Amino acid sequence: MHTVKHNGFFITLEGVEGAGKTTQIHLLAEALGENVIVTREPGGTQISEQIREIFLTAAEISAQTELMLIAASRAQHVSELILPALKDGKTVICDRFSDATIAYQGYRKGIDLKRIEQVNSIATQGLKPDVTFLLDLLPHVGLNRKRESDEPLTRLELETITSHEKVRKGYLALAKSESERVMIINAQLGIDEVSKILVSETKRRMQMKTQHRY
Amino acid sequence: MHTVKHNGFFITLEGVEGAGKTTQIHLLAEALGENVIVTREPGGTQISEQIREIFLTAAEISAQTELMLIAASRAQHVSELILPALKDGKTVICDRFSDATIAYQGYRKGIDLKRIEQVNSIATQGLKPDVTFLLDLLPHVGLNRKRESDEPLTRLELETITSHEKVRKGYLALAKSESERVMIINAQLGIDEVSKILVSETKRRMQMKTQHRY
Repeated sequence: MHTVKHNGFFITLEGVEGAGKTTQIHLLAEALGENVIVTREPGGTQISEQIREIFLTAAEISAQTELMLIAASRAQHVSELILPALKDGKTVICDRFSDATIAYQGYRKGIDLKRIEQVNSIATQGLKPDVTFLLDLLPHVGLNRKRESDEPLTRLELETITSHEKVRKGYLALAKSESERVMIINAQLGIDEVSKILVSETKRRMQMKTQHRY
Repeated sequence: MHTVKHNGFFITLEGVEGAGKTTQIHLLAEALGENVIVTREPGGTQISEQIREIFLTAAEISAQTELMLIAASRAQHVSELILPALKDGKTVICDRFSDATIAYQGYRKGIDLKRIEQVNSIATQGLKPDVTFLLDLLPHVGLNRKRESDEPLTRLELETITSHEKVRKGYLALAKSESERVMIINAQLGIDEVSKILVSETKRRMQMKTQHRY
């Protein structure tokens, strides 16, 4: 399976619950101006949202089923929304993408990482982000941030701190093995400070990609 | 990933639309008596039925999404229903299983067969049927049988004869490569005749498996 070519720019944000992804995505989209599409995983298309619904409400879902549902959602998200936008030259910012599956289903749930990569590769048609920002945070800090907000806790958030630590470990291992693509950001920095890093790093990489093209 | 061990007996029926699987499954279950569970794919559990609903009603579903949804449904079906029953020593008869994905998503839709096998292997946890009966029929005969019935045509049935021929070709290739497990049955034989073959072959193989065990 070959990597898909496109003239757009694909940015993903990753991180444990409460790392501030949503806030940062809004700020980044604002800074980049027009031609930007913001989306999220799991979700982003009608079918993906239907799948998300099953995924969030099901009680007795097996680890394999969860993996496949996420992959199905991603496959539709990529083919219906992300790829067409990128081929159209747009910038796409996505809240979580295939790295999240490696961290959550691999490191946390213990599904074989090689298997996850195979599934990811089919679902994404080989598409990789141009840059991934990992908002890194000690899990208990992230959960406490969430708990101070009004939103009810999701099933994921209710799981133990220990399992969040596994997720973080997974993300950090990923960042190490793909250090060119994945940039670790200390999410305990102030909102503005994190945003400044994201915006300048995105612009730098966009310029590099454009120069590389001509 | 290792194959799962169990003391039950796992039978699957495969074939194009209208080959008579439903009728034969009922007759086989009746002949085998107690301790038999009849189920179908995609479906068989509450989550799987929810997934089936998306799968059947969605209009703009990509080939990759379809593959992953089927795999998700199968993963839940295996972990929640089929495996527990087999481990409990029961006989499970399933209307379509992983071979159908190779025939429909591989040979018909053109998804890489190796990829499908990887996905199947995760979804089934390595579980293989003890015997698979392929009810083989020329596609136009099967469709005509269906059209004489009162049931409305499904999305699958509406697709062209050509694509059904691809499915058949896939099934026959599979039967050739796994000739010990997959038995080809001429589905143009009479209902009783087909049933006799299925029942006697099942009993023979069940006995073989029992003898092999002690």
